[in-house]
Amino acid sequence: MLSEFDLIHRYFSGWESYSDGVLLGVGDDCALLKPAAGTVLAVSTDTMVAGVHFFADTAAAIIGYRALAVSVSDLAAMGAAPMAFTLSLTLPNADEIWLEAFSRGLRLAAAAFGISLVGGDTTRGPLTIGVQVIGTNPSGESLTRRGAKPEQLICVSGSLGDAGAGLRQADSLMDRSRLSLEMLRQAPDSLLARFLCPTPRLALGQLLRHYASACIDISDGLVADLAHIMKASGVAAIVESDRLPLSAALRQFNPPDITRLALAAGDDYELCFTIAASRWQALQADENFIRLSASVPVTVVGKVVAGSGVVVTGVTNAQGDCLQGDCLQGECLAPVTGYQHFAPGDINDPDQ
Amino acid sequence: MLSEFDLIHRYFSGWESYSDGVLLGVGDDCALLKPAAGTVLAVSTDTMVAGVHFFADTAAAIIGYRALAVSVSDLAAMGAAPMAFTLSLTLPNADEIWLEAFSRGLRLAAAAFGISLVGGDTTRGPLTIGVQVIGTNPSGESLTRRGAKPEQLICVSGSLGDAGAGLRQADSLMDRSRLSLEMLRQAPDSLLARFLCPTPRLALGQLLRHYASACIDISDGLVADLAHIMKASGVAAIVESDRLPLSAALRQFNPPDITRLALAAGDDYELCFTIAASRWQALQADENFIRLSASVPVTVVGKVVAGSGVVVTGVTNAQGDCLQGDCLQGECLAPVTGYQHFAPGDINDPDQ
Repeated sequence: MLSEFDLIHRYFSGWESYSDGVLLGVGDDCALLKPAAGTVLAVSTDTMVAGVHFFADTAAAIIGYRALAVSVSDLAAMGAAPMAFTLSLTLPNADEIWLEAFSRGLRLAAAAFGISLVGGDTTRGPLTIGVQVIGTNPSGESLTRRGAKPEQLICVSGSLGDAGAGLRQADSLMDRSRLSLEMLRQAPDSLLARFLCPTPRLALGQLLRHYASACIDISDGLVADLAHIMKASGVAAIVESDRLPLSAALRQFNPPDITRLALAAGDDYELCFTIAASRWQALQADENFIRLSASVPVTVVGKVVAGSGVVVTGVTNAQGDCLQGDCLQGECLAPVTGYQHFAPGDINDPDQ
Repeated sequence: MLSEFDLIHRYFSGWESYSDGVLLGVGDDCALLKPAAGTVLAVSTDTMVAGVHFFADTAAAIIGYRALAVSVSDLAAMGAAPMAFTLSLTLPNADEIWLEAFSRGLRLAAAAFGISLVGGDTTRGPLTIGVQVIGTNPSGESLTRRGAKPEQLICVSGSLGDAGAGLRQADSLMDRSRLSLEMLRQAPDSLLARFLCPTPRLALGQLLRHYASACIDISDGLVADLAHIMKASGVAAIVESDRLPLSAALRQFNPPDITRLALAAGDDYELCFTIAASRWQALQADENFIRLSASVPVTVVGKVVAGSGVVVTGVTNAQGDCLQGDCLQGECLAPVTGYQHFAPGDINDPDQ
């Protein structure tokens, strides 16, 4: 059995720095970071429990890659640039083959997203992965969930529902330990890759600092996550289900509840943001956006109105997608019923 | 069962800020922090598993208080001022009485140490507490484990072995759930309090930035933690066991292995640092130090020499404290035997 010190030393120290500003990395009581002048820090923590948040028998390289990807997605949602992360790894035992693969996947993700591992600890127990990310934003330019206003557009990046379908594919696999991170990364649009190695929308998030009024990453499903923006902003959303961006891979897989997957399955780690119509025009003319959207398109899926909650139009029982019943979680239902309580627009709101 | 959102909202949101620079706290994808200009960040993470790192049946307020105290101690060891922390709470179930008490203890600690809760998550599973702390240091003034040089003195704050004895007392208690955080905090020198609600030496750590050459907090025991300084600095330590500071409470408890507790039991969260003799003179004349040391004395326990490892003098078999056998953990033994390999001093070392 390797001791904690041996473990950290063998698998998690001596990595190169993938970001600026790391003065002292793994190995002291604290890491030391020097963010660039004029920046503020964005800080988030995520805990992923085997059997709850991921399949414990997935190839360890994929588990490592995905753990960092989904954590970094919180930075993308704030428009932040990744800087550093710490790792809290709880393991039932020190399986060196598992650790080597996990460490390799984690490091690939760190290199891909430009974020440096600067500390962590290992403990004995049921497999659990905690990742704490730190990013930086130019002062005054962070995106938050507050700021959506009536008449603004609701947009999402990429496509929705892929990861939900990918979860089903992964769930039905006989041997998830044989999946290869490298193969998945070579087919990033496959449903399995969309679930197992998602891509945080970092470049888009940073660009949106200058355009969007509010932003979130879609981890729990469009309806649930959009509801967070609506609640924080004190407004309501109308989502048109026939505008939901569905990928070719998802259409080919053609699940019977395809719309429901796009609305509520989660795990896509796309960005959902609100934007004034004039800013949307400007964004579409931005050269950086034109370049980005060639690979990651952005789709208008609805609009912000006065009131509270999230309403989805165009979903019928005939599709098996009733949103008024038990088919969405409690988190989503309450806002949907809130539709009837729309209040008149706030006359003090300058956007009205 | 409360949902994650309910839990966070009810027990961990809406706290006041106990530090400067928190722009956005709990409730978005990330917290936003603005450290003061000219500072660097100190970042650390700790995971504490019930049954491994603490007694699960301890009063929840004490568990919350202690979890933050031991994490903040890592900031003290770097000379950093606390700023913000995030919490990763894994719970077997949402016991509201437990959560209320845990939250109360955590908040008392946050107020005591001047650190703001800015985020976190809750997951279902075996009781595990992850705390990630962020502090700030004036640029270029951080204490690390690197910097100890031959001929420097080795000092420790407070007294050693108390928490080890307190652990024994706690271990033998019939009902740890009836312990009161408030009572322990009113008797901070009691052995139980030293184990269950330790005090991170924040003010001393910040003062030592101007004096010490290397520093660590004693979580795993003096010998083990001092060995980290020695390894990082490339030097060796001689500790004189008859100089170890023992408290009145520990002497009264009078465990048969009192010296071993002071050397190796850990959990005291005192600071151990190295300092040049001339700087030690200057420190003792510093008004801030005179004031601090009235309540938390600092004791010279040994000196740095060329070589590697940690040697303890004055410990005999007659005391039942043999340090060459199995009575210390493997972490400590190797360095002790390393004593024979002392090399001549480095002639390029300006302190020689």
